[in-house]
Amino acid sequence: MSLTLSTRLSAVRGSAIRDLLTLTARPHVLSLAGGLPAADALPRARIAEAAARALADPAAAQYCETTGIAVLREVVAAHESARIGRPVGGGDVVVTSGSQQALDLVARALLDPGDPVVVEDPVYVGALQVLQAAGAAVHAVPVDEDGLRVDLLAERLAGGLRPRLVHTVASFHNPRGVTLSQERRRALAGLAERYGFLVVEDDPYGLLAFDGAPPTPVAAHGDRVVRLGSASKVLAPALRVGWLTGPAPLTAAVERLKQSTDLCGSALTQAITAELLADEPWFAAHLDGLRAANRERAAALTAAIDTELGGVRRSTPTGGMFVWLDFDGPDAPDTTALLPRAVENGVGFVPGSAFSVDAGFAHSARVCFATYPPDELREAVRRLARSLS
Amino acid sequence: MSLTLSTRLSAVRGSAIRDLLTLTARPHVLSLAGGLPAADALPRARIAEAAARALADPAAAQYCETTGIAVLREVVAAHESARIGRPVGGGDVVVTSGSQQALDLVARALLDPGDPVVVEDPVYVGALQVLQAAGAAVHAVPVDEDGLRVDLLAERLAGGLRPRLVHTVASFHNPRGVTLSQERRRALAGLAERYGFLVVEDDPYGLLAFDGAPPTPVAAHGDRVVRLGSASKVLAPALRVGWLTGPAPLTAAVERLKQSTDLCGSALTQAITAELLADEPWFAAHLDGLRAANRERAAALTAAIDTELGGVRRSTPTGGMFVWLDFDGPDAPDTTALLPRAVENGVGFVPGSAFSVDAGFAHSARVCFATYPPDELREAVRRLARSLS
Repeated sequence: MSLTLSTRLSAVRGSAIRDLLTLTARPHVLSLAGGLPAADALPRARIAEAAARALADPAAAQYCETTGIAVLREVVAAHESARIGRPVGGGDVVVTSGSQQALDLVARALLDPGDPVVVEDPVYVGALQVLQAAGAAVHAVPVDEDGLRVDLLAERLAGGLRPRLVHTVASFHNPRGVTLSQERRRALAGLAERYGFLVVEDDPYGLLAFDGAPPTPVAAHGDRVVRLGSASKVLAPALRVGWLTGPAPLTAAVERLKQSTDLCGSALTQAITAELLADEPWFAAHLDGLRAANRERAAALTAAIDTELGGVRRSTPTGGMFVWLDFDGPDAPDTTALLPRAVENGVGFVPGSAFSVDAGFAHSARVCFATYPPDELREAVRRLARSLS
Repeated sequence: MSLTLSTRLSAVRGSAIRDLLTLTARPHVLSLAGGLPAADALPRARIAEAAARALADPAAAQYCETTGIAVLREVVAAHESARIGRPVGGGDVVVTSGSQQALDLVARALLDPGDPVVVEDPVYVGALQVLQAAGAAVHAVPVDEDGLRVDLLAERLAGGLRPRLVHTVASFHNPRGVTLSQERRRALAGLAERYGFLVVEDDPYGLLAFDGAPPTPVAAHGDRVVRLGSASKVLAPALRVGWLTGPAPLTAAVERLKQSTDLCGSALTQAITAELLADEPWFAAHLDGLRAANRERAAALTAAIDTELGGVRRSTPTGGMFVWLDFDGPDAPDTTALLPRAVENGVGFVPGSAFSVDAGFAHSARVCFATYPPDELREAVRRLARSLS
């Protein structure tokens, strides 16, 4: 049957990453491609207990408020207040189906086709897709070791660029692995004020700082910031619980759009999430365990990279899930061409080009240190080294 | 803070119904306004058991396939095959966050701003909102006792209207309470073939036929039909599990769009839903119980309406959740004006105007018989009668 699709859909780049996940999901492949929490880090028994407790109340099986159940909004508001250093109320929170839905709703609520927006390069692909689906005109600003080049953004703004929003994964960047410096955060919040754009601060990894001290959010430096959070990396992706906090006109618009998008989220997984986040001693211990495991894994992965791979520069992870590799020199491999050989050798990664706004990063790659224990990470790097020779 | 919203958002009508739910959610109000399954019909213990079982596998806490977990897609495909009388494979199913998300994704995948679409009048408001958000040019065709006036649609098509899609709640219509006749279903499928549009057959209530025989779907009469299904009315809304089946180019486009919209649904609630739907003896008994309770409640509500309310015509429910009221004669109340008085008297309903595409149904109302047991339904009607005097 022939079917004409909408023009906005044809503007959306397919996710090379999700297609690659299929490739790298073959048995015997150690896949450093995904951004999956480790299976043993998922608190499954605790989730089952919380589910049983929640279901004592019929409300946990019913439709719920479009903005999310009150108890969850309150606990998220308390966390956010502590993070940004000024009071956030439960009424300022909209619970979404992962932070990806928050991003999609913000884009649809704010953007008309052709509206300019700024993204980081390399970019979180899910953000690029959402902005393309909204028909936005995407402008890319590079990322270096201290995160988004806010100085270059300032030049573009001075030159006349007037974006509706600037998207940033400021803490433990996906895919670049770096963290935006506090100086740049302050500058970014100031530019938002001066030029009237919104910063979309996409923060799924902030609580995964190895040293237990989440970076002070961009939102602490100004109020033209929408913060997106998620339970996926700190509890479990299958809860599909994310949230946003931000200016009241935006959260009201997002609520209205969410109503027609899916009516509401799951009262059940929201009740589970609320219980786990509100149990402070348990949640603190759980986070400590995650951070310790990730720190150990990141150390094993980077040490193996330094030993086994010649001619590669890498980011130095201080949290999150990712290390970024840049192969240097005249013999630097094209990582897209390298991938099939690597998969044959039993290891997967994501080529840098998948994160490029304009066809760059041909010699780069993203690897995830969170999914496997140290021994398997070391074996994965050995296989990658074999693929390079 | 001032914030410019997208033009498409300002085209979306707010849901009077959800606003009313706030009003009618006051204590002591018997609300016939919502479309909520009865609290005692929600199989909470069975859901808790299924959750515990599912969580024995780490996959139930992880990200899952964008299209839904394989075991759920297979059980939905088996149900759909039986319903439409030809084989549907698991690969033809996309699992969504309730059928509302399926509707939203179909609209966004198919429609460009200005594209003509046809809806029923009165209309399921959630469909109207989705189509407005997609920027569609909405054309309304009336509904009578046998459902959508397919003859009038045929006249409009002959006159040159070329919709991209026609949305219909063919079985146990929301809000009109009627069911599209088989003759009209055949004719509608034929028109879709002849004029090249898609029928979006929105079917959350089909399994709730009082006589246990779900109406043969429109999709049984032709293949230019997208079927939307949901676990919300037959299991529990908080699972947030719906699905769509339809032409392969459409399901592929929906999958691509869902990827950027929310990555994937909940592996946990999908695993629960799969277990409950696949347990045939349990699910059959559960549906029998729901149907029996609903039949008894509908009988109590309609008998009370006939006894207590003068000058009102009503639909005769044969399934689903709703009865439609038309107040007749020169003294017929404006139901929007009536509502605050009714709420003061302790009863809620939805005024007909909320379901109107073009400001009609001022003297109509939708009442739900599913939420309360017979005695409370009778009391609700007495309160409504008092509000009228």
